[in-house]
Amino acid sequence: MISPGEFELIARWFSPTSRERRGVGDDCALIDTAAGTLALTTDVLVEGVHFLPGADPDALAHKALSVNLSDLAAAGARPRCFLLALILPRADPAWLEPFSRSLLALAERTGCSLVGGDTVRAQPRGAPESRLSIAITAIGEVPPGGGRGRNGARVGDDIWLSGRTGEAALALACLEGRAQLAGPELAVCRERLDRPVARVELGLALNGIATAAIDVSDGLVGDLGHILERSRLGARLEWDAVPVAPAFAGIEAELARSCILSGGDDYELLFVAAPGQRERVLEAGRRAGVGMTRIGVIETGSALQIVDAAGRPIETTLASNDHFL
Amino acid sequence: MISPGEFELIARWFSPTSRERRGVGDDCALIDTAAGTLALTTDVLVEGVHFLPGADPDALAHKALSVNLSDLAAAGARPRCFLLALILPRADPAWLEPFSRSLLALAERTGCSLVGGDTVRAQPRGAPESRLSIAITAIGEVPPGGGRGRNGARVGDDIWLSGRTGEAALALACLEGRAQLAGPELAVCRERLDRPVARVELGLALNGIATAAIDVSDGLVGDLGHILERSRLGARLEWDAVPVAPAFAGIEAELARSCILSGGDDYELLFVAAPGQRERVLEAGRRAGVGMTRIGVIETGSALQIVDAAGRPIETTLASNDHFL
Repeated sequence: MISPGEFELIARWFSPTSRERRGVGDDCALIDTAAGTLALTTDVLVEGVHFLPGADPDALAHKALSVNLSDLAAAGARPRCFLLALILPRADPAWLEPFSRSLLALAERTGCSLVGGDTVRAQPRGAPESRLSIAITAIGEVPPGGGRGRNGARVGDDIWLSGRTGEAALALACLEGRAQLAGPELAVCRERLDRPVARVELGLALNGIATAAIDVSDGLVGDLGHILERSRLGARLEWDAVPVAPAFAGIEAELARSCILSGGDDYELLFVAAPGQRERVLEAGRRAGVGMTRIGVIETGSALQIVDAAGRPIETTLASNDHFL
Repeated sequence: MISPGEFELIARWFSPTSRERRGVGDDCALIDTAAGTLALTTDVLVEGVHFLPGADPDALAHKALSVNLSDLAAAGARPRCFLLALILPRADPAWLEPFSRSLLALAERTGCSLVGGDTVRAQPRGAPESRLSIAITAIGEVPPGGGRGRNGARVGDDIWLSGRTGEAALALACLEGRAQLAGPELAVCRERLDRPVARVELGLALNGIATAAIDVSDGLVGDLGHILERSRLGARLEWDAVPVAPAFAGIEAELARSCILSGGDDYELLFVAAPGQRERVLEAGRRAGVGMTRIGVIETGSALQIVDAAGRPIETTLASNDHFL
């Protein structure tokens, strides 16, 4: 079920040299200092790979920082600051102004200061146009009880999902002409695609409750696969329990399932917690203002089985959203 | 003397939101934690801008990490860990193997662990080839007395340079056919270009001694200009005091001066210290195994004057190595 490619590539060539607690392969690396633990994460967005050429710079800045904030949320860290590496095809004020304004506004709102960076023109004069790339490295502080990774699942744990998945992928399907939505539904889905909201408050509220977590960036099934792989366990995912957004009401069933289970870019939290924690999970969701749904259970073995309401396996060939496939 | 372009661009659009001690515009950002101060830096290398297409992956990995270690050295920080963002045209084991081996070896030698990263293919399938880019974010721990930036110069301070500058630029001039060197001299200069050694031990030894510092990446004059700009002061640079590497013996005078004063990629430390600190500066150099040369003095005003042995101004139109010019 887990796709090879990017993930395997990273693991193969860049196994951490680290004596730190966690490293390559988790959403965040954790480093211990005398005063506490820091969470570190880096994410790259490349034009034509992660966003369409000509993408709105305001939305792009929002997304570039949010995907990093989302990694901090998965680890249960509080955002502290970030560094920005920009590779620009050209120095265009009409692009830089809205990009920087949007970036700094989100930084201010989330308490995550821009503290440094590097800016490079993507090619020498006269060379063919090349791609805009944005790399952000974010640093968070990990409170006591935080710092979970992907490897803390145990047999019998509940699998939980915050909010709902698939709307960003549905917006992309509409943009690519593979689906159609009415204006208001499309607007909601576009907002999910362009301006994802990192579940930072929820991530903090789950400290001491969730034992493994990931943010859903590659798709629900693919990201659950990462937890299973790192925890060396299997799972049963109950398709009928997975929340479905209203926008999917008129969408063809196979496309809907594909968006919900393997569409990327949702930035919801997918996590596991012991069954005795159910009330605390729901309370954490209420405090953070987001719905929480129990969508499956951790099992022995290494397989991820997706079942219907009657417990029958659903045939699927869903893969995660892997840029090296 | 200071070129506009990259530096102005960064300052204009990305003034830090930070309440941290220092931020955008210094080699490192410093963030305070209860246990001490962390230094953060990020540097991007882009194919065709910072290195030639087809560059040796072993040397490239060395350089990509070293330029970040050099920023930590300027701030007087001890390397702790780093994150790697790779934008690859393709997933090629023949490139990844030597790149990762070299990177992890330097990480091990310098105590700077690889703790996380992101790897992205530079373009969708079928799109034209695009550029390899490497962004590294390094984190260092700042011991007591460290954490200097570029803004601590005072009138009357000595200006010091570690080692010597220009050899990397001379190697590049040879590669581009603008100069010729005998084999052994070329090998020395190529080593400086391809495998710069960050002055980490020196940077630490200068804590409590140097009050402002920068690593020479954009060229001696341009980088001194950054210190002057941030310190709001001028300087007199004594050309005859600037050390000249043996490789320049047979090189035409104008090219030699250009390499030494404005060639980039040296990664030596350029710093200021009070005149009363001369013996301690020389001792720090001895401990770190690198020669130290006093090359000028900080003055009032905002001009950088380059003078000969008789104190006569030298005409020059040297600019720093600015990727946005």
